[in-house]
Amino acid sequence: MTSTLRPIDTVTAASPEGPAGVPLSLRWDGERLWLLDQRLLPREVREIPCTRAEQVFDAIRLMQVRGAPAIGIAAAWGLVLAMQDADPLAIGAWLARLRERAAWLRGARPTAVNLAWALDRMVARLAAVPPSDGRSARLRLAAEARAIHDEDLAICRGIGDAGLELLPSGTRVLTHCNAGSLAVSAWGTALAPMYRAAALGRELQVFADETRPVLQGARLTAFELHAAGIDVTLITDGMAAHLMSRGEIDLVLVGTDRVTANGDVVNKIGTLGLAVVAKHFGVPFWVACPSSTWDPDTPTGAEVEIEERDPREVTHLGEREIAAPGVAVRNPAFDVTPAELVTGIVTELGLLRPPLGPSLEAMLRSTRD
Amino acid sequence: MTSTLRPIDTVTAASPEGPAGVPLSLRWDGERLWLLDQRLLPREVREIPCTRAEQVFDAIRLMQVRGAPAIGIAAAWGLVLAMQDADPLAIGAWLARLRERAAWLRGARPTAVNLAWALDRMVARLAAVPPSDGRSARLRLAAEARAIHDEDLAICRGIGDAGLELLPSGTRVLTHCNAGSLAVSAWGTALAPMYRAAALGRELQVFADETRPVLQGARLTAFELHAAGIDVTLITDGMAAHLMSRGEIDLVLVGTDRVTANGDVVNKIGTLGLAVVAKHFGVPFWVACPSSTWDPDTPTGAEVEIEERDPREVTHLGEREIAAPGVAVRNPAFDVTPAELVTGIVTELGLLRPPLGPSLEAMLRSTRD
Repeated sequence: MTSTLRPIDTVTAASPEGPAGVPLSLRWDGERLWLLDQRLLPREVREIPCTRAEQVFDAIRLMQVRGAPAIGIAAAWGLVLAMQDADPLAIGAWLARLRERAAWLRGARPTAVNLAWALDRMVARLAAVPPSDGRSARLRLAAEARAIHDEDLAICRGIGDAGLELLPSGTRVLTHCNAGSLAVSAWGTALAPMYRAAALGRELQVFADETRPVLQGARLTAFELHAAGIDVTLITDGMAAHLMSRGEIDLVLVGTDRVTANGDVVNKIGTLGLAVVAKHFGVPFWVACPSSTWDPDTPTGAEVEIEERDPREVTHLGEREIAAPGVAVRNPAFDVTPAELVTGIVTELGLLRPPLGPSLEAMLRSTRD
Repeated sequence: MTSTLRPIDTVTAASPEGPAGVPLSLRWDGERLWLLDQRLLPREVREIPCTRAEQVFDAIRLMQVRGAPAIGIAAAWGLVLAMQDADPLAIGAWLARLRERAAWLRGARPTAVNLAWALDRMVARLAAVPPSDGRSARLRLAAEARAIHDEDLAICRGIGDAGLELLPSGTRVLTHCNAGSLAVSAWGTALAPMYRAAALGRELQVFADETRPVLQGARLTAFELHAAGIDVTLITDGMAAHLMSRGEIDLVLVGTDRVTANGDVVNKIGTLGLAVVAKHFGVPFWVACPSSTWDPDTPTGAEVEIEERDPREVTHLGEREIAAPGVAVRNPAFDVTPAELVTGIVTELGLLRPPLGPSLEAMLRSTRD
């Protein structure tokens, strides 16, 4: 039996919090999930209103939503939508349905760790104390999605606060790829301290690597910083060393997909070269991420398998072929920056300095006390 | 009075020498200069037959011909075409006309050093011993252009021979931009030893940086090596560090636009970062160029002004905008790699090793003895 109740009628819709001028990557209005279609950026700002889980599934699969945290949050709300018509009169069947829908949503992007994490959390919380009726089931699912969403917001705000001390007025900072508001609930990771510093009236000059092959820097980072009114200058990936050699960069600040037990940093291809060059020219190299990005079960970056993506990302731009036809291509998506090249890590819990492995361990232990 | 004599009827047309399968950047067939339209590469291989100097002027101006040596050679043949109808009955008027046409051709690309050099040389040789009649004037101009053309060929062959010892079979070599056959008369500078090694049956694996923003690596280097049947793999500029960190690159070999007195290397933007990364990972970093690329009058790279080019090279690909609209851009065309990051220089006179400044000086002194 289906219900006409709105699934989360007592849960507050997301506040439009985030850097002024920058569209939110996703927001819940009480009954629909609005996903910013990031494939259209920077040409067009358009949201996809999702009333059915199938729409969320497609948006994740087609990478209309991107950024690990944003994908996780979208999936959580997707599970809310997937279960809005399921009534837990027989709780066993309801939980089976919940697990089945979560497994299905996970298939939208099987390698996305945050997606699996968010869905697992939703299922675990609901299974631990099963809901007694349809209304409570819907409310509890929505509350859990809301919590995942709000926790990400709080973490990003925390990273912004913690990173403030790296950015006195006048700082010229270089970033790579997009670790910005668009990749998360809002504010971003590497960009969060920049938004925070700008909000305090500090003058920043941000350089954005275009980040070939997918151009996240040119399309997304340049877009969102420019939209927020921050002074941003786009460069190609090969220009960073030149600017550093002329003393035009004070700091590098990037995001990361995973930090291994010893502090090695897995991030978008091009990060390692940037770190080596920064070291050579004596420019501090900082990494910003939620503390949950630390993966204590992987000893070092050497154990991380680097995914190779579609060669067309390198040879084509949209439908246009930009390289010599028939040429072989390598397209590793990520690289590993060894801990010794990392000046420090900004997390929502504070700044971590070398030796990073012990620092990370101590930080996480402190949160358990 | 005009003549119907062909301008260079007794000068041998260029032999189609060069790497098998690779179109020549330019060739003289006895009466016409054929210029490969490099703006159409790699999509289309089309030559422009030039019978008038105006066509050569336009091809240089529109960058249909590119690469410093190729531009110089094209200009020399352009001056032959410009003077084909001028009869030196009054030698003063003829020389004035020669100088005027040379000055005009120089304006096709005012900053191209080789263009000015080739034209100055043509004028100086003709002015030193003025021709006595129309036929000898045309023959001597054509012979001088032929000499400039053939000397470049000999230099490139010499670089190929000298660099052979860097490329034993199995070498995995990375190059940047296009220092290939297309940039010169034939064979190239950095690519010349690779063509030579391949002709000797050595197995090479060449990695070509795509070289943003203008993509000379993706469009030209990948094209010509692939056309020659050499194993070439295209990567984006940010991937080099990753490959080196995994031990997949044995050698970096690039060209250069200018080597300063102390051995600093001015080359396409992105070269400096590559050199820093190579140093970090212990990969030898070699530079190939004609010995004439050494500029003893400029003490160090710090004295070299770095030209900033059109921001549209970064923000657009053809007519398509690939970056966030309105964002600021930096677009330095070159960077300076300090001598201490250079393992050695390959010239037609042999291999030079550090300290590069004294090595360069000794090499050039030896040629004067």
